[in-house]
Amino acid sequence: MTRTAAIIGGGVIGGGWAARFLLMGWNVKVFDPSPEAQRKIAEVLENARRSMPGLFDVALPPEGSLSFHSTIAEAVANAEWIQESAPERLDIKHKIFAEIQTDCASDAIIGSSTSGYKPSELQEGARSPGQILVAHPFNPVYLLPLIELVKSPKNGPQIVDKASDIIGSLGMYALRVRAEIDAHIADRFLEAVWREALWLVKDGIATTSEIDDAIRLGFGLRWAQMGLFETYRIAGGEAGMAHFIEQFGPALEWPWTKLMDVPELTDDLIKTIADQSDAQSGDRSIRELERDRDTNLVGILRALKATDAGAGAVLNAADLDLRKDPSDLTRPIETVARAVPLDWTDYNGHMNEARYLQAFGDATDRFMEIIGCDADYIASGGSYFTAETHIRHIDEVHAGSRIRVDTICLLGEGKKLHLFHEMYESGRLLATGEHFLLHVSLATRKPSPPGPVVERKLTEIATDHSELPLPEGIGRAVGQRR
Amino acid sequence: MTRTAAIIGGGVIGGGWAARFLLMGWNVKVFDPSPEAQRKIAEVLENARRSMPGLFDVALPPEGSLSFHSTIAEAVANAEWIQESAPERLDIKHKIFAEIQTDCASDAIIGSSTSGYKPSELQEGARSPGQILVAHPFNPVYLLPLIELVKSPKNGPQIVDKASDIIGSLGMYALRVRAEIDAHIADRFLEAVWREALWLVKDGIATTSEIDDAIRLGFGLRWAQMGLFETYRIAGGEAGMAHFIEQFGPALEWPWTKLMDVPELTDDLIKTIADQSDAQSGDRSIRELERDRDTNLVGILRALKATDAGAGAVLNAADLDLRKDPSDLTRPIETVARAVPLDWTDYNGHMNEARYLQAFGDATDRFMEIIGCDADYIASGGSYFTAETHIRHIDEVHAGSRIRVDTICLLGEGKKLHLFHEMYESGRLLATGEHFLLHVSLATRKPSPPGPVVERKLTEIATDHSELPLPEGIGRAVGQRR
Repeated sequence: MTRTAAIIGGGVIGGGWAARFLLMGWNVKVFDPSPEAQRKIAEVLENARRSMPGLFDVALPPEGSLSFHSTIAEAVANAEWIQESAPERLDIKHKIFAEIQTDCASDAIIGSSTSGYKPSELQEGARSPGQILVAHPFNPVYLLPLIELVKSPKNGPQIVDKASDIIGSLGMYALRVRAEIDAHIADRFLEAVWREALWLVKDGIATTSEIDDAIRLGFGLRWAQMGLFETYRIAGGEAGMAHFIEQFGPALEWPWTKLMDVPELTDDLIKTIADQSDAQSGDRSIRELERDRDTNLVGILRALKATDAGAGAVLNAADLDLRKDPSDLTRPIETVARAVPLDWTDYNGHMNEARYLQAFGDATDRFMEIIGCDADYIASGGSYFTAETHIRHIDEVHAGSRIRVDTICLLGEGKKLHLFHEMYESGRLLATGEHFLLHVSLATRKPSPPGPVVERKLTEIATDHSELPLPEGIGRAVGQRR
Repeated sequence: MTRTAAIIGGGVIGGGWAARFLLMGWNVKVFDPSPEAQRKIAEVLENARRSMPGLFDVALPPEGSLSFHSTIAEAVANAEWIQESAPERLDIKHKIFAEIQTDCASDAIIGSSTSGYKPSELQEGARSPGQILVAHPFNPVYLLPLIELVKSPKNGPQIVDKASDIIGSLGMYALRVRAEIDAHIADRFLEAVWREALWLVKDGIATTSEIDDAIRLGFGLRWAQMGLFETYRIAGGEAGMAHFIEQFGPALEWPWTKLMDVPELTDDLIKTIADQSDAQSGDRSIRELERDRDTNLVGILRALKATDAGAGAVLNAADLDLRKDPSDLTRPIETVARAVPLDWTDYNGHMNEARYLQAFGDATDRFMEIIGCDADYIASGGSYFTAETHIRHIDEVHAGSRIRVDTICLLGEGKKLHLFHEMYESGRLLATGEHFLLHVSLATRKPSPPGPVVERKLTEIATDHSELPLPEGIGRAVGQRR
């Protein structure tokens, strides 16, 4: 039976909640008095449909149904989860909770997206305070998994367990906050950083863009995967967390920031932190933590290369500087020369089968550029599409190993292109890739002859390569005997 | 001619610098009086060799040579860049700079890794103050691209330009800090967050592990790709940055943290921030920024799935909950059912050729699990390796589309396994994958018969599937006419 959520307040956050529930198969009923609400939620939903389902490596349930309602009473009827994302004013929220509790099921969960208020404040004057808790999400709600789940003494353990389970079933993580405080946990950090950023801009030390670079090219990358303490545990090296605090601690009392109320680093506090850090990370040595961190960072950095964003753009610029053009096109052409990256390998450090095709695809792309089928040519409406591929996996290769691909053009005639790639580590043959491509018009997506410059260059290379000895392994079908 | 860098102080940071220079083809000369220095640098270098070269999509230059020296004089001779990474004590640093400047080239750059001192403090009493500047890196130096480059009035523009160029040639990014202040830019944020974290631990609100989750499952993911201001620009929605500040600004004056010296949000300051944000991001609409953010987040989240870290672990757990077992093994088996993720597509939203093989590889992995070749079996020493693959690309598919793979076992006999996959979007055939695999002993990496449980299950499926009609396209070689 399809479950139902009610969304009270349909801005960016309410819309994100709506998208998360819908794409996880829930029916969603929205109440928002704004005439813009339907348009805004449709836009969030479009973004979510584009990005969220592919996050998962399995199919999501069929999307639930979305409906808009003109009263809170109608929206909350039959809802198992009711999420309030109204403006951050306590009087408004109290009024909404009163309306919700007039009509909702007595066992429904009422979550608030508040980033500042404590649950006990939200519960003041409520008919059934135990039903209301803080479920604070992060934008974009349809992608970021964190929910800060905060209870007051009036919430029983049962509702917190139930809320946790539901959040888990939405592909999210409920961080159960031990004690309610203003702004919960994450927003206290955001607040501290925002305030510091305002000082830096005001004092003319850095612009908004420079501040963003200072974050996303450095510690932002560390925080995306390990957070603060585990990162610092590594920085403390073999001597561990207590050593790190000894080293870094005194800086806390230096006049680095405008904000100087600092907790005293008593032996007790140092022991608490060191013990918690041991419990968190102590099953892995500093060496293992370093390698975990580095593997994560390589994955993140290479993901950012694919979008040419932040640190990825820095690396792409470096690639262009380092790249060499092949000197002799009459011989097999070196179309790839690189190290095997960590994110191309499995936990054994062994290159994954799909990455062989990625390297061959890169080799094909490089060959394209050499014949003039480059970004400008593609923008003008022509390109080659791969129709067929045959790969032989001959030997294994590991992360960090240097590989190269030599490419021979077997046929380059009219719309047809037939390439044969050999992948080597030094003299060791690792794999071959045989590819048949067709030139297409990007407007019609149908085969078409290439432009004259590309055709001329391709004919020239194909003619030269027709005199090369044919490598072993061409024209094989899968499983065919030699 | 190979360039030379001198590394003065070979801890985690100095070692990271050494690795960065070496892997970028520089010779590196190290001075560090500690008897542990050689071992520590060797360890950093081992980590760097594993992770750094593969970050680039081109080959790095041949690695430079590493040498250790017993005097600063010897280490800095002929060095073009000298990097000081000594302990954070000004008297120690002054002494080191004096020794360096006795023997170094007059046009060498002397960079300091200091996280706290201003360049003018470092330059006090120096023979040639204009040669010394702050080049503050982030750990791990061999992966993170950020260098805060800070000058004092005593540094000419020439040395800053030259330092910037060299940093760029190391695959890094020099953030030129406009004015020197204690702790530059990034460490002011780290300091503010660290202090807030100490309060949270001290007050028993959160443990170190909970704080790390509050960071890495939420805003840490945002900061890895856009930083603070561009993220908030999006949160402000169509109304922009000034609106965001109006909304969020008042919270600054709430008693959320223990640290309350807050810059006044004057109209001037709001205008400065809004103008800088326009200059930074104004060429893209909020809609475009949202999509850029989401594409980056999907890439990062999926990179973290591959390592099962942080938010990736949350998503992997959700996958397990959502996954369904195939009901009928006598028919073609549905081995993949998923949406095409954004990171599998190019800028046109068109699935990349290598990702077809990734989906087929996932289908093969799923088939393995079904026949009992699962993680436990593999841990016991047997597995299947793909020997040969043939792919036909029949139609295009886009991000967000739902695809499935149906798998037929053509042969499962002894060590041999022959699979045929068909990829569909609803009824539309997108591609076929034909694969020949061999069972291997993971100890010898040579073909070997599978274990009895796997063999029995495989025989059963192969026998059932031998009665299915043969799909079109089996046994083709590349370019073969139909």
